[in-house]
Amino acid sequence: MDIRIDIERLRHDLEELGRIGRDGRGGVSRPSFSPADFEARAWLRKKIEDAGLCYRQDGAGNQFGRLACAGKTVMAGSHIDTVPNGGLFDGAVGVLAALEAARRLVEEKVPLARAVEVASFTDEEGNLVGDFLGSRAFMGLLDENEVRNGRTSFGLPFQDVLKKTGFTAEGILAAQRDRPDLAAYVELHIEQGPILEDEGVPIGIVERISGKQYRQCAFIGESGHAGTTPLELRHDAFLGLADLALRATQLVATRHYGSMLTIGKAALHPGSFSVIPGRADFTLEFRSASAEAMAAIEQEVFALAEDIAATRGLSFVSRIIDRTTPVTVAPRLTGLIEEECRSLGYAAMKLTSGAGHDAQILAGACDSGMIFIPSPDGISHAPGESVNWDDLEKGANVLLRTILRLAT
Amino acid sequence: MDIRIDIERLRHDLEELGRIGRDGRGGVSRPSFSPADFEARAWLRKKIEDAGLCYRQDGAGNQFGRLACAGKTVMAGSHIDTVPNGGLFDGAVGVLAALEAARRLVEEKVPLARAVEVASFTDEEGNLVGDFLGSRAFMGLLDENEVRNGRTSFGLPFQDVLKKTGFTAEGILAAQRDRPDLAAYVELHIEQGPILEDEGVPIGIVERISGKQYRQCAFIGESGHAGTTPLELRHDAFLGLADLALRATQLVATRHYGSMLTIGKAALHPGSFSVIPGRADFTLEFRSASAEAMAAIEQEVFALAEDIAATRGLSFVSRIIDRTTPVTVAPRLTGLIEEECRSLGYAAMKLTSGAGHDAQILAGACDSGMIFIPSPDGISHAPGESVNWDDLEKGANVLLRTILRLAT
Repeated sequence: MDIRIDIERLRHDLEELGRIGRDGRGGVSRPSFSPADFEARAWLRKKIEDAGLCYRQDGAGNQFGRLACAGKTVMAGSHIDTVPNGGLFDGAVGVLAALEAARRLVEEKVPLARAVEVASFTDEEGNLVGDFLGSRAFMGLLDENEVRNGRTSFGLPFQDVLKKTGFTAEGILAAQRDRPDLAAYVELHIEQGPILEDEGVPIGIVERISGKQYRQCAFIGESGHAGTTPLELRHDAFLGLADLALRATQLVATRHYGSMLTIGKAALHPGSFSVIPGRADFTLEFRSASAEAMAAIEQEVFALAEDIAATRGLSFVSRIIDRTTPVTVAPRLTGLIEEECRSLGYAAMKLTSGAGHDAQILAGACDSGMIFIPSPDGISHAPGESVNWDDLEKGANVLLRTILRLAT
Repeated sequence: MDIRIDIERLRHDLEELGRIGRDGRGGVSRPSFSPADFEARAWLRKKIEDAGLCYRQDGAGNQFGRLACAGKTVMAGSHIDTVPNGGLFDGAVGVLAALEAARRLVEEKVPLARAVEVASFTDEEGNLVGDFLGSRAFMGLLDENEVRNGRTSFGLPFQDVLKKTGFTAEGILAAQRDRPDLAAYVELHIEQGPILEDEGVPIGIVERISGKQYRQCAFIGESGHAGTTPLELRHDAFLGLADLALRATQLVATRHYGSMLTIGKAALHPGSFSVIPGRADFTLEFRSASAEAMAAIEQEVFALAEDIAATRGLSFVSRIIDRTTPVTVAPRLTGLIEEECRSLGYAAMKLTSGAGHDAQILAGACDSGMIFIPSPDGISHAPGESVNWDDLEKGANVLLRTILRLAT
């Protein structure tokens, strides 16, 4: 069936949503449960209802638009929250392309064998208590203690934020009860990397989604006067961190090609010109598309850290802040997406998602796949985030055709 | 002449001064021009006057107690300001032992050939605009722009702080006019390092005072998504800093033994788990007792930084925040101190001061020397800072005898 999405309508929706939460710095700031997010939620609800879909919201604030039918549900979506000072496309593309696809199914009165549901998951960006609050709630995968006692990335107790929203910890923890029986989940997303643009290919078929581990770590040594403590007698916590940064990066680059390791934040204590750092706090994250590599990196990097600590007379501590496991998309689903690209005449290539996505969480319940479109200049999570509208049209058509194949 | 100081009186003075500026964290917080500092200044003035010395204060707030006589001035002193949450002895020992020595000269009616002056210099600790504000003002070595437009280490414009004190930029910049013609300067101080305690020697005769250079530096690279930017394509500013930290430390340790290099503070930007640091700001300081080594370290470390930047696709920037040049104490003065230790029967050893002191600044005007006493456990600039009273008695006796030798 030669059905296509309406790119002008999709573009209009993206631009309209993109005006909600505009910040003064050229970007969009729409973290979940912010006033801008509630404005966007009301806008999306109206869009869903206007499309003739049946609107519902679960206890975690996940929003759905259902095209009801007998049988299992084919779900497509993403999220409409953003990082602070983010862009118009990360997440929004997946929700609004799914909405456009469902709208086309309604308009064309396509006979379906399965229900189709558009989904917008709460707080994919993890501004509240860890990434994927909504999809994890949907899957029953949340840490109850974190939900009840956690603090948001802005430093407030999550409970205090919740009080102003009408949502409750109980509602969030019970959200999984409303999950329909899923046949498949498909998510369209910007790549957030340079590969598709470099290769000149408009469609990426995600074969694997990387898992990641976030750790908060510290080396603890001994502070002292920088003028009177000889170099050879020091237990400089920062030199432990510097050593680990170089050697762990080297280790991952040489032994686990394609995996990532990043130290994104560091603070030295007490933190002045002339005091040897007695403590170096830092974040460490690593990612891989392979569960074996994740386990090996965890083992090797933390053994290395202990080794460095022992050599330098320091101690090393770390705790896990968040983790996700790598996902391999079912070949049935990547094959189906590939066939639809071929029938539409679009060039496509398989790739791995280095970033995490709700699709990864949904993979616990059903076949879960992703379609990528190029990120111009690889930019995401920033005001300069963009799409080529031609690519978006192609990506949304592939999403529509994939939903159609799965639901008929 | 077998004159000695009164250790009980000196101890009483130190403990009394130590109650001014007591903070709630077990230490003393008495930065220059704080309310606690003004309380301490009033206390010191009364002590100077009670000792029968002629009190004066210059435009920079340096306080003096003069035992007048014909001829040049033999000056002894230090400072009574502290770092935030510091201890009772850094600085105070030098001022109050000099006061005790002058008091003994008055009491014993010792006939003098030269004037003796007790000095307490403003802001040795550099809480206002750079280290050694008082002694630099006394020497006419201040940067006028820094005095007029600088900010204090607490972030306020220095001018705003000055307004509440009665002192003015003009007065500070003109303070040198009141400097008497100096014959010599002697400063008793705690070692702030482990050497005397390790060697079991009560008196250190400072042969050299290290120079230092403070730089504010940054590596600038490119931030990016930690999940989607391959390791080999990154320009991670933090890895540049880690590389420099290890290699510059190694360079100084192997090529400039006895010199110091410290990175005490670092901040990564934007600074989150999953964003590659696009910028790493850090402090770098290095110290040496040798002017040649200072010049070589400066040249080699910054060449290394440029080299690392070029290799890693980063840029490197730095600016000088402060610098002092190394000082070699006149052998005439170290020899005289050594003779007095011998005549008193005290074990003594020569050493280098890694920390900076007012004596270093005064060295531009006259022979300037220092006497160290042990720092138990090497602790200074912290509430746990202490002295053994026996050592202090010996150090203060050596100071008294040295003044006597210089002034008679």
